[in-house]
Amino acid sequence: MKNTTRRNFIKKSVLTTAGISLMPNLSFGAFESIKKDKLKLAFIGLGLRGVNHLNNALRRKDIKITAICDIDEKRIDLSLSRIKEAGFRTPKVFGKNDLDYRNLLDLKDVDAVIISTPWLWHTKMAVDSMKAGKYTGIEVSAANTLEECWDLVNTHEKTGSHLMILENVNYRRDVLAVLNMVKQNVFGELLHFRCGYKHDLRHVKLNDGKTAYGKGVEFGEKGISESVWRTQHSLLRNADVYPTHGLGPVATMADVNRGNRFVSMTSHATKSVGLNKYINEVGGSNHPNANLKWKQGDIITSTIETANGETIIVTHDVNSPRPYSLGFEVQGSQGLANFDYFTKRIHIEGKTKTHRWEAMDEWLKKYDHPLWKKYGEYASGSGHGGMDFFVMNAFVESAKENLAPPMDAYDAAAWSAVTPLSELSIENNGAPQDFPDFTRGMWVKRKPYNWIKDTY
Amino acid sequence: MKNTTRRNFIKKSVLTTAGISLMPNLSFGAFESIKKDKLKLAFIGLGLRGVNHLNNALRRKDIKITAICDIDEKRIDLSLSRIKEAGFRTPKVFGKNDLDYRNLLDLKDVDAVIISTPWLWHTKMAVDSMKAGKYTGIEVSAANTLEECWDLVNTHEKTGSHLMILENVNYRRDVLAVLNMVKQNVFGELLHFRCGYKHDLRHVKLNDGKTAYGKGVEFGEKGISESVWRTQHSLLRNADVYPTHGLGPVATMADVNRGNRFVSMTSHATKSVGLNKYINEVGGSNHPNANLKWKQGDIITSTIETANGETIIVTHDVNSPRPYSLGFEVQGSQGLANFDYFTKRIHIEGKTKTHRWEAMDEWLKKYDHPLWKKYGEYASGSGHGGMDFFVMNAFVESAKENLAPPMDAYDAAAWSAVTPLSELSIENNGAPQDFPDFTRGMWVKRKPYNWIKDTY
Repeated sequence: MKNTTRRNFIKKSVLTTAGISLMPNLSFGAFESIKKDKLKLAFIGLGLRGVNHLNNALRRKDIKITAICDIDEKRIDLSLSRIKEAGFRTPKVFGKNDLDYRNLLDLKDVDAVIISTPWLWHTKMAVDSMKAGKYTGIEVSAANTLEECWDLVNTHEKTGSHLMILENVNYRRDVLAVLNMVKQNVFGELLHFRCGYKHDLRHVKLNDGKTAYGKGVEFGEKGISESVWRTQHSLLRNADVYPTHGLGPVATMADVNRGNRFVSMTSHATKSVGLNKYINEVGGSNHPNANLKWKQGDIITSTIETANGETIIVTHDVNSPRPYSLGFEVQGSQGLANFDYFTKRIHIEGKTKTHRWEAMDEWLKKYDHPLWKKYGEYASGSGHGGMDFFVMNAFVESAKENLAPPMDAYDAAAWSAVTPLSELSIENNGAPQDFPDFTRGMWVKRKPYNWIKDTY
Repeated sequence: MKNTTRRNFIKKSVLTTAGISLMPNLSFGAFESIKKDKLKLAFIGLGLRGVNHLNNALRRKDIKITAICDIDEKRIDLSLSRIKEAGFRTPKVFGKNDLDYRNLLDLKDVDAVIISTPWLWHTKMAVDSMKAGKYTGIEVSAANTLEECWDLVNTHEKTGSHLMILENVNYRRDVLAVLNMVKQNVFGELLHFRCGYKHDLRHVKLNDGKTAYGKGVEFGEKGISESVWRTQHSLLRNADVYPTHGLGPVATMADVNRGNRFVSMTSHATKSVGLNKYINEVGGSNHPNANLKWKQGDIITSTIETANGETIIVTHDVNSPRPYSLGFEVQGSQGLANFDYFTKRIHIEGKTKTHRWEAMDEWLKKYDHPLWKKYGEYASGSGHGGMDFFVMNAFVESAKENLAPPMDAYDAAAWSAVTPLSELSIENNGAPQDFPDFTRGMWVKRKPYNWIKDTY
């Protein structure tokens, strides 16, 4: 295993003891890291997500931005102005064609790369980036096919370059508090999880070609922002195409790839009603998109079995009117918690009233994760309720030391494999699909990442 | 089809217009039916559940109790004293051996039979009862094997005797209100359901042999009440052995067997931890039961696909500390509701705030079922929050007219088939199992039962 390979550009001797230098009164100011090295960072893809990462990077004192890449000039202009406003030096710019990112990867003054491009580019770019020796951050989901999952793992192993999947929900405050509770055995022996991505995306998948989340029922070439590339997947694939926001946190709690692994899965899809209904209602029955045959079922239910005998229900539910929820549930032999955006409740035998739920407020305070205790106030402005700060922080700090990241190539592969495996299962009447063991058996001896710390 | 066969003992001309004679101030008084005939009712099985049914029958003016049967003399004595207290005539008594119930079924002055025995007796007795020409009520779950599911259907079709599965949760106030909403198209086109039986039964499956829900970790011959017969199923079967409380209401909403049907299902079980942990904690590690190998996984997840393209997640979760919940969720193209014992919330596009839940109180009032509006106050003392009154009422009223019941032999078979099919799927790594079409294709033309009425 080359997991622990270190790259040369890092001087290991520069550790400082300034870990507590960040005080809450620095909120919205620049983030001063515990390390003094400046990481030379590049960005490929500067859409809404990429610019969000850029903004968070620009709040840090421990990075330089040496290159950026996007094929859309408007996004480049926006990014350059943000970089200038923040007082950073102007980076090299790439994007004159789809493959220009490779010229960015050729640069010697790029240590690490953050990839926030449409799904179909994720693996290709991550593979090229690892081959170029870059510490690579990849947005979710990481891969579209099983072969791509293997590409990520194989390239990581061959090159020794690290890959981090940038799953921000792993850093949500309640998620990290529950992870803390899991590690402290609050739930007893783990049995069952629920999670998913339940988010009404109709206004994201369809728009008027002018505003990202506006009115209209166009997509593809006539759309704008995510609808340009994301919606086509709903038209052609009956699969859970976006599994990691729910599954990443759960996989971490269950030590997947580190003493446990996903073994097999069945998936079922409902009929497809939502997008067609929306287009007819908003665009009218004469609109050219009104009679499209959407392949993706509105609600997709997958059930994973793990090597340790747990089950995980993963839901994909994005075409229907509904309140946002990742629908987390963690259940063990001692009790359970379920926590979504609106309701968080817990029952622990001997601790809460028999047969009754208790609101999680006190539990979330008691088990608040060290990272959030320390950086919570600072992080709050970073996007998605603060979690975007932490995922960027973990990436930069891990990259500076060239250490294995919290969520690595094996995680990216296993979590993303839900997409092709769910597609296969649905296509085959719910037939169980085996997960490849992307660790090649090493899950037996790989140790859990140390998530409970106050650095990154 | 012999569904509409009428029996001779009913005079069809006796309908009265006294349907509104039951006023709220009759609460806890005797229930006066809308029909004047007295149904000659017999009870087989007078454990906790059977006596509960008996108590509800004794509040009615439209029945006689002509025979009772139990092999436990104490339960017979208790029942006889209840019958006497209520001013009813003393019934014939059976139970001198396991098959004495057949002598009860030979009686001519028994029109209808309610069977509340251990699971392994349900189908055998129901089949014998239908063969004897009795209108037959069977407690949940109705069958243990696929063959037994067919036995129920075949016997019903051969004899013309009606079978009603006595699923009380179909009459829960919120369940009937949501059914009312479904029928009025509040949720749009139906897509997805969740339901199940999530109930900490450790103190039911294990006791001290003296009190039904007391301390202790005995079962079988050393136990008492349900632990005598119920617990053995957990020891030997890895299956959802109790699916109907969740699935019955959902199946009714989805018109299963009446324009829709269950097509296939996959099931997954977690490891078995809860009962062993409980026995060791309560009984000590030296207790003879401390090292039993429980076959039943603690949490069993089944996902059903329907002919109309909906999916249904059914959960069986009875060996772990947790608050009670049947975990209902009903989702359609227009919105969704989830409602358990503690939280009831709804989101309907155009009616509730965008992307937000709303408490269901006003909705439950607005769509309160006619039955509950009329009889709710009266029913409240009947057991299980009132729903036991309604299931008894539907049984008696249907039996008096010898009409097809709301939940019939096909429903009993399809709902109960989850037990053997989940067992097969779990044993085969989650392989999908096809549901038999118990209606022999008739689901295509069978019309939905008229649930929305204020009689029964």
